[in-house]
Amino acid sequence: MYLTQGLRRSIQQTPEATASVFQGRRRTFAELGDRVARLAGALRGLGVQPGDRVGMLALNSDRYLEYYLGTYWAGGAVNPINTRWSVAEIAYSIDDCQTALMLVDDNFTGMVDELRRRCPGLRAVVHVGDGAAPDGMLGYEALLAEARPVDDALRSGEDLAGVFYTGGTTGSPKGVMLSHRNLFTNSMAVVAEGAVARGCVGLHAAPMFHLADGCFMNAMLASGGCHVIVPRFEPTAVMEAIQNERVEEVLLVPTMIQMVVDHPDIGRFRLGSLRNMLYGASPISEGLLDRAMKALPAAGFTQLYGMTELSPMATILTQEMHREAGRQLGRHRSGGRAAMGCEVRIVDALGQEVAQGEVGEIAVRGPGVMMGYWNKPAETASAVRDGWMFTGDGGRMDADGYVYVVDRIKDMIVTGGENVYSAEVESVVATHPGVAACAVIGVPNDQWGELVHVVVVRKPGAALEGQALIDHCRERIASYKCPREVSFVDAMPLSGAGKILKTQLRAPFWAGRERKVA
Amino acid sequence: MYLTQGLRRSIQQTPEATASVFQGRRRTFAELGDRVARLAGALRGLGVQPGDRVGMLALNSDRYLEYYLGTYWAGGAVNPINTRWSVAEIAYSIDDCQTALMLVDDNFTGMVDELRRRCPGLRAVVHVGDGAAPDGMLGYEALLAEARPVDDALRSGEDLAGVFYTGGTTGSPKGVMLSHRNLFTNSMAVVAEGAVARGCVGLHAAPMFHLADGCFMNAMLASGGCHVIVPRFEPTAVMEAIQNERVEEVLLVPTMIQMVVDHPDIGRFRLGSLRNMLYGASPISEGLLDRAMKALPAAGFTQLYGMTELSPMATILTQEMHREAGRQLGRHRSGGRAAMGCEVRIVDALGQEVAQGEVGEIAVRGPGVMMGYWNKPAETASAVRDGWMFTGDGGRMDADGYVYVVDRIKDMIVTGGENVYSAEVESVVATHPGVAACAVIGVPNDQWGELVHVVVVRKPGAALEGQALIDHCRERIASYKCPREVSFVDAMPLSGAGKILKTQLRAPFWAGRERKVA
Repeated sequence: MYLTQGLRRSIQQTPEATASVFQGRRRTFAELGDRVARLAGALRGLGVQPGDRVGMLALNSDRYLEYYLGTYWAGGAVNPINTRWSVAEIAYSIDDCQTALMLVDDNFTGMVDELRRRCPGLRAVVHVGDGAAPDGMLGYEALLAEARPVDDALRSGEDLAGVFYTGGTTGSPKGVMLSHRNLFTNSMAVVAEGAVARGCVGLHAAPMFHLADGCFMNAMLASGGCHVIVPRFEPTAVMEAIQNERVEEVLLVPTMIQMVVDHPDIGRFRLGSLRNMLYGASPISEGLLDRAMKALPAAGFTQLYGMTELSPMATILTQEMHREAGRQLGRHRSGGRAAMGCEVRIVDALGQEVAQGEVGEIAVRGPGVMMGYWNKPAETASAVRDGWMFTGDGGRMDADGYVYVVDRIKDMIVTGGENVYSAEVESVVATHPGVAACAVIGVPNDQWGELVHVVVVRKPGAALEGQALIDHCRERIASYKCPREVSFVDAMPLSGAGKILKTQLRAPFWAGRERKVA
Repeated sequence: MYLTQGLRRSIQQTPEATASVFQGRRRTFAELGDRVARLAGALRGLGVQPGDRVGMLALNSDRYLEYYLGTYWAGGAVNPINTRWSVAEIAYSIDDCQTALMLVDDNFTGMVDELRRRCPGLRAVVHVGDGAAPDGMLGYEALLAEARPVDDALRSGEDLAGVFYTGGTTGSPKGVMLSHRNLFTNSMAVVAEGAVARGCVGLHAAPMFHLADGCFMNAMLASGGCHVIVPRFEPTAVMEAIQNERVEEVLLVPTMIQMVVDHPDIGRFRLGSLRNMLYGASPISEGLLDRAMKALPAAGFTQLYGMTELSPMATILTQEMHREAGRQLGRHRSGGRAAMGCEVRIVDALGQEVAQGEVGEIAVRGPGVMMGYWNKPAETASAVRDGWMFTGDGGRMDADGYVYVVDRIKDMIVTGGENVYSAEVESVVATHPGVAACAVIGVPNDQWGELVHVVVVRKPGAALEGQALIDHCRERIASYKCPREVSFVDAMPLSGAGKILKTQLRAPFWAGRERKVA
């Protein structure tokens, strides 16, 4: 099992079919194969040895696809870099997994000097662009033109395919090591589940550095699809690409779906080719699903739940479950159920399965479970036990195996013996018109164990007071779930990925104490 | 990756759905799970240790499904026995892989004494039937009733899942060792290719001991399908099962398809539920495909090409290629093209890829390639080289990757520098009304290297002479392909599986000489 297998198969079976489309540039599988073999030759010439990490810091492009395949073909391991991170975070990850060679596009060349200063191990930087390479960098197209195509290194099975950095909400980012087997079996499962149709025309609008889009990309590669690529998510660009390339599938997150569906110009585009909208990260709200189904009547919706550590898919919520019969059962609120090859269960703090319907931690076993965290054996041992990946997500499972994610385990609050899920309370607080952002945390209390505390950023000009917000909640959720305390801040502390850092919000309340997590 | 994963998933997701239907007996996945866990308990009680072989000699039944799953659940490895074999062949295979425990149904209990005599290692025999167990055998249902359900042994990955005996046309049968990973990835690929639909109602009419049906069974298990089972192939039983259980998919060989399609009673049955007819072993003839499409207008046809050593699928010919557009390109005569996860190429005697369109040996690489032949390291080393399984089949590949199987490599004849494919000549000889059976072989000739020789069994009462048969061929195929010599025999030497033993036919001609194979 090797991640170049799909490309090799497409070269044999459909050499003249379109492999990628980017800003009017079209490449066939034969061309893609040639460029990949040349890029691999160039990488080897630059010293890439089996398993060596090769980074990429860039927006989406057809070259991002070439980077993945070329690195595998050369025998290296990818390190796709989060473009939203600060230079410090990027430097940390490059340094952490000893990335000596990286590709950078025009949007990020400004960071290169600083990265070089911080990462003495960074030997070479390749400029991925059409213009001349800046001083001290190698030109991508020049490298390819000069390079000799080389044979596929055929790294496979348990060989390292990449180090994918995640996190930042709890301490430093962790490099998730995934093997060829991890990623290949997961992509076969995605196709086997019908989440991605064989040979589809798919659109990469979500960032290609992230394994959410990577999952989609790998499934398309395994099954010979055509990759339409836009540099970044932007609703009009997405709709234009769908219309012009007759895109059949796209992977987005619900916020992006909302921006497309509610876009004032949506009526101007012919979007009838779209058959499947994949999404992840969170369930889709009832209202948005209604609007999306109306705006895109030919499209179905498929949710994938998972995480980088799972390569990434663990569960799937099929198109059927987004339609009337599924919605009547409330299944559109779930993350679906165990995908082919994956085993999912809900466990207590001791790793024992809880009774059906009870909340516990979601644990997943299967061929996608990561090799481990790069250079973090303790974290690996705590996350992967007896073959099970402990996701850190709290959830429950119904009698038909549907999994409902309720909260991050560490964000769950135990107050007076009752479990309160911060995500649920936040969704109620957020409906108050005076709230711009909010985060619900547990703070220590001698009588109740923890108290429900909400940190709020007011909307500009809103004169919201704490008691009014508590009253707002009392009308909508059970009393024990309502915040007892409200504090106001000007802005939330955010991670590089834009997630609220609850650890930081909790810190002043817990100074000198240790918080127990279920 | 473990072969019990699909069952575990169905127990979690669809416990009350029907898992198997056999002669009016229906079992849900919850019941199947319970019986499998009990059977595993019984097998462990009978001394089955991790990796120990457990045999089964029986016609199809729901208990055959339980046997596969129960053996895996117990941690053992299956040894499903060819019911067409002689007692000597069966004894050889039991003894060869040290099968100490076997399950036997009422059709084969008569063989048990002889097998015990020949196989001193055979410790226990379980009678799989509804009546009382014969003397000296254990009763299957009694064992299950008494056994405690045990936890799944969860053997997986490279662990041995089974020893599957093949061959007999060249020397003694070989035990193909397949791992959980081999079989599981292949079954995921079968589903990913759309060859078996998720959750389908599938009919087991081909023998369940054979990995052709095993492939179908594993794909259905991985994707939660319902197994409808008839004891053996019989056209009326097949049509009744399709009608009564609304069967959607079935796996047959072309001869069986022919017996269904040409059956005088076909009009009496409602067969409209059938969506997919899987077949293997050989392409389907033009005429039969026409008749089958007419008789079963709702059904599509899917061919899988492979072999036990490949777990078994290597290539797939999709439903589309059986329809008009595909047939105009002649693709229905191919075995299809490389399936997901598989790499296929055509190589010469040195293992180098031949030019496109040329005939060579079909070689396949991928996660399905066997662990090896049981206790036959030399044969394994010769069959699997550098990860490639050398199939022994001669074939060519077209510009779109379609593979056309022309002959077994060892049956190809080189005469005057030209390749002659025995299979092609046989198909012409067989059209002569006086021919009951035929086999084309190469015999040594000093001038031409080899001569094309045909061995014929006349139809009863036919007064066919050699020259008439040669003339018949000359009208239909190129002169160099025509037989130069004809010999008549009363009956063909057959293997246990009913294949003509060409080695034996060739032997007298080649006495004292060595035949070179391309």
